[in-house]
Amino acid sequence: MPIKLAEYLFRRLSQLGIGSIHGVPGDYNLELLDYVEPAGLRWVGNANELNAGYAADGYARIKGIGALITTFGVGELSAVNAIAGAYAERAPVVHIVGTPERSSQDGRKLIHHTFNDGEYKRFAQIHAHLTVAQTRLWDPRTCPEQIDEVLKQCLIHSRPVYIELPVDLVRKQVCDARLSNSIPFPEAIPSSAQDEVLSRVLERVHSAKQPIILVDGESRALGIVDDLQKLTEKTNWPTWCTGFGKGLLDETLPNFHGIYRGDFDSPAIQNFVRQADLVLCFGPHHSSTNTYGYSNIPETENTIFFTDNAIGFGTETVRDISSKDMTFQLVKDLDPTRITRYTRYPDLPRDYRLSFADVLPDQAINQASLWRVLANFLREGDIVLGETGTAGYGVREMPLPKHVRLFTPVTWLSIGYMLPGAQGAALAQEELVASSDYHGLNNARTILLIGDGSFQMTAQELATIIRHRLNVVIFLINNDGYTIERCIHGRKQGYNDISPWRYLEAPSLFGANKSTFRGSARTWNELKNILENDTVKDGRELRMIEVFVDREDAPSGPLLDCLRDQKAQETLDRTV
Amino acid sequence: MPIKLAEYLFRRLSQLGIGSIHGVPGDYNLELLDYVEPAGLRWVGNANELNAGYAADGYARIKGIGALITTFGVGELSAVNAIAGAYAERAPVVHIVGTPERSSQDGRKLIHHTFNDGEYKRFAQIHAHLTVAQTRLWDPRTCPEQIDEVLKQCLIHSRPVYIELPVDLVRKQVCDARLSNSIPFPEAIPSSAQDEVLSRVLERVHSAKQPIILVDGESRALGIVDDLQKLTEKTNWPTWCTGFGKGLLDETLPNFHGIYRGDFDSPAIQNFVRQADLVLCFGPHHSSTNTYGYSNIPETENTIFFTDNAIGFGTETVRDISSKDMTFQLVKDLDPTRITRYTRYPDLPRDYRLSFADVLPDQAINQASLWRVLANFLREGDIVLGETGTAGYGVREMPLPKHVRLFTPVTWLSIGYMLPGAQGAALAQEELVASSDYHGLNNARTILLIGDGSFQMTAQELATIIRHRLNVVIFLINNDGYTIERCIHGRKQGYNDISPWRYLEAPSLFGANKSTFRGSARTWNELKNILENDTVKDGRELRMIEVFVDREDAPSGPLLDCLRDQKAQETLDRTV
Repeated sequence: MPIKLAEYLFRRLSQLGIGSIHGVPGDYNLELLDYVEPAGLRWVGNANELNAGYAADGYARIKGIGALITTFGVGELSAVNAIAGAYAERAPVVHIVGTPERSSQDGRKLIHHTFNDGEYKRFAQIHAHLTVAQTRLWDPRTCPEQIDEVLKQCLIHSRPVYIELPVDLVRKQVCDARLSNSIPFPEAIPSSAQDEVLSRVLERVHSAKQPIILVDGESRALGIVDDLQKLTEKTNWPTWCTGFGKGLLDETLPNFHGIYRGDFDSPAIQNFVRQADLVLCFGPHHSSTNTYGYSNIPETENTIFFTDNAIGFGTETVRDISSKDMTFQLVKDLDPTRITRYTRYPDLPRDYRLSFADVLPDQAINQASLWRVLANFLREGDIVLGETGTAGYGVREMPLPKHVRLFTPVTWLSIGYMLPGAQGAALAQEELVASSDYHGLNNARTILLIGDGSFQMTAQELATIIRHRLNVVIFLINNDGYTIERCIHGRKQGYNDISPWRYLEAPSLFGANKSTFRGSARTWNELKNILENDTVKDGRELRMIEVFVDREDAPSGPLLDCLRDQKAQETLDRTV
Repeated sequence: MPIKLAEYLFRRLSQLGIGSIHGVPGDYNLELLDYVEPAGLRWVGNANELNAGYAADGYARIKGIGALITTFGVGELSAVNAIAGAYAERAPVVHIVGTPERSSQDGRKLIHHTFNDGEYKRFAQIHAHLTVAQTRLWDPRTCPEQIDEVLKQCLIHSRPVYIELPVDLVRKQVCDARLSNSIPFPEAIPSSAQDEVLSRVLERVHSAKQPIILVDGESRALGIVDDLQKLTEKTNWPTWCTGFGKGLLDETLPNFHGIYRGDFDSPAIQNFVRQADLVLCFGPHHSSTNTYGYSNIPETENTIFFTDNAIGFGTETVRDISSKDMTFQLVKDLDPTRITRYTRYPDLPRDYRLSFADVLPDQAINQASLWRVLANFLREGDIVLGETGTAGYGVREMPLPKHVRLFTPVTWLSIGYMLPGAQGAALAQEELVASSDYHGLNNARTILLIGDGSFQMTAQELATIIRHRLNVVIFLINNDGYTIERCIHGRKQGYNDISPWRYLEAPSLFGANKSTFRGSARTWNELKNILENDTVKDGRELRMIEVFVDREDAPSGPLLDCLRDQKAQETLDRTV
């Protein structure tokens, strides 16, 4: 049966679980947008395209795939940095660009949104640097398979793809035959190599004396999170994650020890990890930030790496082995009676909460305690986002209840990401709750912890959170500027200052009901009163809390060390 | 003498007339920023990089060159759309990117702000699509000439250039010898071809019976604006401009007729232009928007085009002839006694103002009259920015006092540009006033006319206008959504709606003094009271006025025609 191209595209997105599409209207995508709501999809309508891209990324990390529609040139280029972040941190975002009609392109017409030089392929070439697959829809006879192919690549690699859709193609008829089948996810072909690798893995697993598990964030992209949960339960082995991996597993298990922080972790943990004779490392992502300056990467010789379609035994990499299949088989075939059971389970420190009894009520809030205190506010099903900056390091200290997903800076570290990211994540959460696909947790919230400098980058997306009545609690950490940069360099320099905003006026400007909860806290007692407020805990829609901390304060870890080194250098400079 | 690389770079920028640098700090540019203020430059510190890029563009269009500093990856990619706009509309912006230290790049380290794959050249490859010259500083021995070369290209082409500066190079010593000479601007080599072209031009000029002058916006990039002013005065020939060219010439001259609108102009003007036997067309830029759908492009056979290093006689293009030299020579050599003097100067309509006596005080403000009424508010030296949307078409109807520069959508048409653009333009204006290089006009203002949807895109840059106490008056045209899109398609569709903001609360959120003037007008009388207010007229710093108009109202011209066609189609659809 014939079907309009736009209908084909949106039916496919819907089949993949997409319920909402982010983006901004523009003259070359308006006709396409006519088909969004008739396809049963929600149109979000963001304030700008960078924010829309960030939001689609946040949505994709929760729902497994997200989509973004922009217009040719101005729109798509505004979103470039968001697409880049999705590529770097493996968020599967489908970027659909409404392009000028084919006659304009063929005729090299000097239309607006071009460089006035008749060249129409420049922006697609830019996206080729940022996406794992690209397609230029042009001939209705091949459009369905072109769409399916890029969507398949998006799913396989959990990375963004790019679709150009000329405005005059929107209503063209295409064949709907392919829609009866889901997009084929390529299976690994069974091979003796695979069996051999599995045997080697099992042999190491069964013979290890001091084994540990390290779960990194690409495990999400590999689709092995559920199997890893089983693995940690079945083995009971000491398990750590990275920042990127935090929030993927149940952190309440007794053998879960939080993030392994390498040089920044306790000596007891560092020694234990270094003495391990087997590290099962899943979904490794060895960027500087995720690895605490490469210091939490396990000793290569004792480690088996489960990566993107390859298994690494130390420095030896066996390619074209599905980590997904291998993890599944490992869980299935490992013999619980033959593995180390840690009869005397190692006594290792764990992340912990602080209660308000642990701090002095009238004292100013500091980052040494803030994050462990805020951890009490979390409950099952929440999504927690800690923006790049001190908040990003802070949230890593929080032990999480079950089914809590965490966003923390990993590699791209683009400040401004987390506010629109929270919009996308909250929308995905709402859809999962509505479809009863959320562990029965109906009062889950999305909690954003963000610095003032970051907030300024993309503040207008608060309006989208408000307009869609999303259940978001924002803790704005006001430390009077770019504290993360002050830690790195220029502690007292003016370029790390920002414009002084009256942050709590933001909800009103952006259209919130005047009764929207807003509060501010400088002392622990003020914070306590806010956290115990029923509206803050159990309200629906936006709540915003401003938390003041010192401009040269940071959670313990790399930032604080950096700041200390800088101060030491200054003292030295003064002495010399 | 040796000098630090950062000092060399900033001395060069300062020599070129740059007084302020736009941008956002980031970990790979902090050391570089240490040298901005010691070089006598102001650091602006924008809220995000896209806005910083837009602002640098606005600054560059007023001061002749602008600069932007971002950080590797996240920062530079956020600015991509602004750089693209500067390329499309010829704003000379120097984009300096602080990149990771050379050892990280050589070592392919998996640092943050990369795609975690060891590849460091991707972002420069993206900028190669968007800039006219790029350089990767790497060896201190060649850095000075590399810098000079890209700056030269920036000046020649009036287009953005790209400089990568690794953080470990900032303090390296380079030779300062080149600084004693200004950057050499290449001169055309005198040739018989040039003489021949000049003779041909003069012959046409002296023999024309009904000649006209058409000034398009690339005249600014060609550096011929002053000569064109002389030419229009010396010939007294009927002179038109385009949207892109508006504000470059003195509009108060009796032979200046405003924008030539092609099919959208009065029949009298269309006939007159079509009957011209000579059109001197300077700096043509034939994009769809600038040409009213290609309808204001003069008849090729009767036109001499002065373009980018070429002169076109009809369809014949003589390349490698400097339009700058040719314009200079033309003004010098044309014999006023031999040219058509229009003894009976043609009776042609001109743009006109409306006074409040021409509208009914209690009636709602409409776009048919708004722009001609607002024209009375303008005075010499003002900079006027009409954002893409109805405002962009509206400002084209305003007759301008002397020395008023105008920004109107030309080709890139990226909504969100004009607010940060106004920040940059206002800063440039302030610097010119301070240096007494502004026609003695000390109370010049920057006036931004912007729609609500556009305002939402980049609203936070209002904070930069406030923090730097720039003399900006904002008229926010509230028409409840993307009216320009409603005109094009989807008149009643929800995707053209936006979040409802309380716009007049923006100054307070963004840090303005509580006494900042804010007013709103729905009727002519309300608008009159505001425009007569002394603070609005003569205040310093920000004033903000919200003007309400109907969501389906637009200035006469292409947008209104589009809307009418859409309504006609809807009626037809209902009838059929």
